[in-house]
Amino acid sequence: MNKKIVFYTVGRILQIEGILLLLPTVVSLIYREKTALHLFLSALIAATVGAILMFLNRKGDRKIFAREGFASVALSWIMMSAIGALPFYLSGAIPSYTSAFFETVSGFTTTGASILPDITVLSHGLLFWRSFTHWVGGMGVLVFIMAIFPSESGRSVHIMRAEMPGPIVGKLVPKVRETAKILYLIYIAMTVIMTVLLMFGKMSLFDSLLHAFGTAGTGGFGMRPDSVGGYSPYCQWVITVFMLLCGINFNLYYLIIIGRFRSAVKSSELWCYLAIVAASIIAVVINITATLGNVYDSLSATIRHSAFQVVSVMTTTGFSTVDFNLWPEFSKTLLLVLMFIGGCAGSTAGGLKVSRLILMVKTVRRDLKRLIHPRSVNTVKFEGKTVENETVESLGSYFMIYAVVFFVMLMVVSFDRFNLTTTFSAVVACFNNVGPGLGGVGPLGNFSEFSVHSKWFLSLGMLLGRLEIFPILLTLSPSTWAKK
Amino acid sequence: MNKKIVFYTVGRILQIEGILLLLPTVVSLIYREKTALHLFLSALIAATVGAILMFLNRKGDRKIFAREGFASVALSWIMMSAIGALPFYLSGAIPSYTSAFFETVSGFTTTGASILPDITVLSHGLLFWRSFTHWVGGMGVLVFIMAIFPSESGRSVHIMRAEMPGPIVGKLVPKVRETAKILYLIYIAMTVIMTVLLMFGKMSLFDSLLHAFGTAGTGGFGMRPDSVGGYSPYCQWVITVFMLLCGINFNLYYLIIIGRFRSAVKSSELWCYLAIVAASIIAVVINITATLGNVYDSLSATIRHSAFQVVSVMTTTGFSTVDFNLWPEFSKTLLLVLMFIGGCAGSTAGGLKVSRLILMVKTVRRDLKRLIHPRSVNTVKFEGKTVENETVESLGSYFMIYAVVFFVMLMVVSFDRFNLTTTFSAVVACFNNVGPGLGGVGPLGNFSEFSVHSKWFLSLGMLLGRLEIFPILLTLSPSTWAKK
Repeated sequence: MNKKIVFYTVGRILQIEGILLLLPTVVSLIYREKTALHLFLSALIAATVGAILMFLNRKGDRKIFAREGFASVALSWIMMSAIGALPFYLSGAIPSYTSAFFETVSGFTTTGASILPDITVLSHGLLFWRSFTHWVGGMGVLVFIMAIFPSESGRSVHIMRAEMPGPIVGKLVPKVRETAKILYLIYIAMTVIMTVLLMFGKMSLFDSLLHAFGTAGTGGFGMRPDSVGGYSPYCQWVITVFMLLCGINFNLYYLIIIGRFRSAVKSSELWCYLAIVAASIIAVVINITATLGNVYDSLSATIRHSAFQVVSVMTTTGFSTVDFNLWPEFSKTLLLVLMFIGGCAGSTAGGLKVSRLILMVKTVRRDLKRLIHPRSVNTVKFEGKTVENETVESLGSYFMIYAVVFFVMLMVVSFDRFNLTTTFSAVVACFNNVGPGLGGVGPLGNFSEFSVHSKWFLSLGMLLGRLEIFPILLTLSPSTWAKK
Repeated sequence: MNKKIVFYTVGRILQIEGILLLLPTVVSLIYREKTALHLFLSALIAATVGAILMFLNRKGDRKIFAREGFASVALSWIMMSAIGALPFYLSGAIPSYTSAFFETVSGFTTTGASILPDITVLSHGLLFWRSFTHWVGGMGVLVFIMAIFPSESGRSVHIMRAEMPGPIVGKLVPKVRETAKILYLIYIAMTVIMTVLLMFGKMSLFDSLLHAFGTAGTGGFGMRPDSVGGYSPYCQWVITVFMLLCGINFNLYYLIIIGRFRSAVKSSELWCYLAIVAASIIAVVINITATLGNVYDSLSATIRHSAFQVVSVMTTTGFSTVDFNLWPEFSKTLLLVLMFIGGCAGSTAGGLKVSRLILMVKTVRRDLKRLIHPRSVNTVKFEGKTVENETVESLGSYFMIYAVVFFVMLMVVSFDRFNLTTTFSAVVACFNNVGPGLGGVGPLGNFSEFSVHSKWFLSLGMLLGRLEIFPILLTLSPSTWAKK
């Protein structure tokens, strides 16, 4: 293990975080808030720690192999959250550091689970920082670094593999750095367009920007106690559409931009994703109408709330317009299942990803065939290409480790003596980076009542979910840190 | 697909069922009950349908390949349950055929989930038949057939593979028929010893026999509203020990009998199984004592109830001595996790099986290693032998299809509008062949309130769980029935 390059990379990330923290500082200054000081102080700490880490490790081999890539990503995310929590803690807005850390991890991992019983106590600066973490975490900080710094040999692909979600990481162009740049440009463009569209709906610039951050990163931190329930139907539809768009593989947007519209539209993951969303919306609308009648005054309102909630949960964003805790059991169970599925690979969404679901079904079909015809050779194909055997194998591994981590977390959190619905959905919502769950952690609830140990474990769960388990697990294993 | 041999085998099974139904008929006659008539009538129907199926398909190729094996096993279990439900239905003890089918499937699959709100209405004959289905289903009916009929070339191994639980099927001796015989002799011996031991505890012969059936098959149908809560601590301990023994791979008993004690004791699955049981008992005892204090009068009673419940749930038997619905959340969650794990492969227990868990952990460890050292070749070893790559791959597939089936069942059952705890644990308890769950389907609850469609789906779930999904799935797929 080449520790020097790992710490050097972490240092670089913290420096960037220091610069990013200047943005909410400016916001706080504009609104003449005291928190500007705490935000600026946190920026200084981030930059200083970063500089020290970089200075101490400036000499040495610059090569990054797989394990350096994993460790860099895992440690960067942990350190970034540890320092990103300081503004909340130093300002006294969140008096417990554990809770501040939870909130920040929830931000960077685009989970959106909050420990704040009353969101309105936050200053504009802190609200901005909180939503901005979603935006930064959505596309990935290390990917961001790669986009702006000259890449060094063999360095980038391992980091990209560790930070980008999905079973297969595809490069858009031969150079990793260019790929990262293109992805970020698309990301920025979508955020800007969405902000403008929300402002057309008479939302203020501040509110529009924060909701665009939360949507683009599929995060879900809102600014009001009823999430986006109080905004106009127009704004709710804009958010619905953009949540849906941000759950799609960003590579497809690149294909569309360079004119390869047909290749983009041929993506089976895209169609599967849209089909699941459409079918779920229809099922929820029918279920609500049949069970609760005209609870939302009109059919169009029922459709709007159903579409919003299905898309919000499936893309693991976590905004809400109504309290789906009051929905019939089938709809709630369906939402719970959608939380596990998540969005597309290469998007900012969490969960298992639709492509894993497709690969899973294809693998099972192959193995069923093999049971009947033992000597036949069957390969798994995805998006027109044969999937490498190793990818298929690691898919099975991913499911298994996912299940083990899930059940361990379930048992740890069950010590808090909440009922099974609350415990189970809290773990589902954190591990899949959704945010709200059911019962006590539903859209109107929050995570403040959980014990300190649960908060740390759920924070770990959010990081495991965002980085897809392996980077964190490898970083925690001593053999990764062995000399050779 | 060679349909003739499939129907011939199913016919043979139904004839055997006809003979087996004579036993409860005799019991009913001894107690001078009217149900003797209904049991005898059912025996006649089974024998007649069986004879017709065998007669119509008596000519033709006698060879069984993989798909004929799967189809034979799946159809046999379905038909056996369909006809095994007749005594309950014809006697009027269970007025709905759906419920009678559910109860019978629950018996044969050794689940032990009941739709009877009041168990005391059943006659002795019906009680006997109900528990006897556990015993028959525990070791497998087709394995039984192989033990008593002369095996034909290439026929048996595919049936054994389809009916025996676990990721790897090992033959004890080169001849499948001999293996089946040895397994059944051990099974019978254990049942007899247990019956005698229970009678020493002043349990009546009838009660002892029925509890021995339910324990040996790890089924869990009791004869009283409070399951085995009303019997003496001695009897409860006897049942605990035998549940534990029946959750162990029966191959190990054979090794002990032929004097290879050391090989038996070296089994890593055995030790892992015992370690999980021991750790869980300790955790539950501490959790109950810390949370509920001296709720069971003495520490020894707390230990007894904890041990009983942990073993009952882990071996997927489902007997209970107390209502664990009242236990603290952590203990309940732990029991829920144990339901998924289940007993050892090659035992009569359900669930995923401990060996799958071990293989899973080893596979994940291999894939983690491969992430860091991409060019290294790592094989998975189990019980001292290298596991074939195909076995490892199908392990991943099994997990994935298991998860898909689980979530589909969850959604279907959620239409019944029970809360998540009840719905979730009902699916867990049926799919893993445990029996009781939590909430409305806890030890004191039952499945009578579920709708007709849920009962059919949960019945299918029990069959999928007992036969480990693939045989049923392949039988339902049209391509299996294609000519070539």
